[in-house]
Amino acid sequence: MRNLNEDTITQAVIERFSKTPDPRLKEILTSLIQHLHAFARETQLTEAEWFQGIDFLTRTGHMCDDKRQEFILLSDTLGLSMLTVAMNNKKPAGCTEATVFGPFYVEGAPKYENGDDVANGASGQPCVVRGTVRGLDGQPVPHATIEVWQADADGNYDVQYTELAHPQARGVLQARADGSFDFRTIVAEAYPIPTDGPVGEMLRASKNHPWRPAHLHFMIKAEGYETLITHVFRDGDPYLDSDAVFGVRQSLVADWVQQADGSWLLEFDFVLNPQKK
Amino acid sequence: MRNLNEDTITQAVIERFSKTPDPRLKEILTSLIQHLHAFARETQLTEAEWFQGIDFLTRTGHMCDDKRQEFILLSDTLGLSMLTVAMNNKKPAGCTEATVFGPFYVEGAPKYENGDDVANGASGQPCVVRGTVRGLDGQPVPHATIEVWQADADGNYDVQYTELAHPQARGVLQARADGSFDFRTIVAEAYPIPTDGPVGEMLRASKNHPWRPAHLHFMIKAEGYETLITHVFRDGDPYLDSDAVFGVRQSLVADWVQQADGSWLLEFDFVLNPQKK
Repeated sequence: MRNLNEDTITQAVIERFSKTPDPRLKEILTSLIQHLHAFARETQLTEAEWFQGIDFLTRTGHMCDDKRQEFILLSDTLGLSMLTVAMNNKKPAGCTEATVFGPFYVEGAPKYENGDDVANGASGQPCVVRGTVRGLDGQPVPHATIEVWQADADGNYDVQYTELAHPQARGVLQARADGSFDFRTIVAEAYPIPTDGPVGEMLRASKNHPWRPAHLHFMIKAEGYETLITHVFRDGDPYLDSDAVFGVRQSLVADWVQQADGSWLLEFDFVLNPQKK
Repeated sequence: MRNLNEDTITQAVIERFSKTPDPRLKEILTSLIQHLHAFARETQLTEAEWFQGIDFLTRTGHMCDDKRQEFILLSDTLGLSMLTVAMNNKKPAGCTEATVFGPFYVEGAPKYENGDDVANGASGQPCVVRGTVRGLDGQPVPHATIEVWQADADGNYDVQYTELAHPQARGVLQARADGSFDFRTIVAEAYPIPTDGPVGEMLRASKNHPWRPAHLHFMIKAEGYETLITHVFRDGDPYLDSDAVFGVRQSLVADWVQQADGSWLLEFDFVLNPQKK
């Protein structure tokens, strides 16, 4: 295996990885090598551009810590996240659609009871969220675990405040036996994804705005059903048709309705897909 | 731009990036999006695999610092580096061939004079390296800047020793007016690339060894000529046909000849390609 040239190297590398015992890993590596090489060959990537790519990936890695996930942000803004979600969530009509996970989920969110205020001090107009978790047959799913997270009135998630001592505007609660749930929080607002890293550079260089339409994140788990990772988007938001991460589904757009006392109400029901046996 | 599915999202993302003012960046982003999406679609990448990919890239970034470049190592072991080198170094017959840069180059190596010992304390059998830098016409190239770097007898570059106070087995010198140069160093030995990071995991999972055949790195710069980044490989090395980074060119394989006093001699001439006008 000497004297590989641009015409012979791809097959040589694939051959090198052909000993991979796990067939799925072998399949993924083979496809990755083919597309990585095809990208370089198609663009006739220069050595200076290769260095820029190495530097971009390195800086992306250095932005990542336990509160910031720049690689997820990169995947989101290149549409890879939404493509992966779309491929893996082909559900029967009637199920609530999935959308991107996003970079701001944090493990170990605080636990709440129905009726509690998950805002926990986050800025924003008060809002009640309520709904029911059901199966495709319309019957309630009892005791689903509902995790929610969202940005505050300034468009920031709690983890974006370096000085904040406790989680805000995120929490986990359980639906009741009849599938119903309700909690208090703040109204979701549109916000820009963080632009102080390599992804921000990419968006500026491509004249793309970093805004996401207002949304509330949900992850809903119940025994016997597929986990649902989704958002509810706020109707009327100016960014619904240009979401920086390509995540909007019309079926997930809902009315936040202002009440007589000035507070807001979001009613949204979720329909889970039975787990494949 | 709502309700994108796996069939429509790729064109929507490409359209989003079509405003990129720099035509070359637009070309690269378009090709990157196409191949990234094609990879995910072809493999029907699962959400769990997507998470593993995010985690792999994040850990790769976290391994990188001013002395370790895990992304270059990843590019090297996936053959992307050598492909990029091959595409960008199509030279007339007679020129010295290029090979990969590798992850162990360090800016600001110490300066030496001809005849000096660049080993600077690195372990290994003493070796003299000498040769001449010429143009394609056979005429000497005067005063070329020659940078060399290599691993020691234990297969480590200086930057792999965390406690080392000064550079070892790397340096910069100038060829004489007649193109000749010579320096002392240590004999190059085969060594494994670092396997304590994500690239090592990938090699183990694919049953690939991490070894590189013994070599000495050169970067040669001279006014009016293309910069030459290459290695000289040591003939007889058992890894010449299975280099972990696909870098071996037969024209770069040379004899290290043991002398009567036990020391070694490598003679190698370099032929530079005139810079495109």
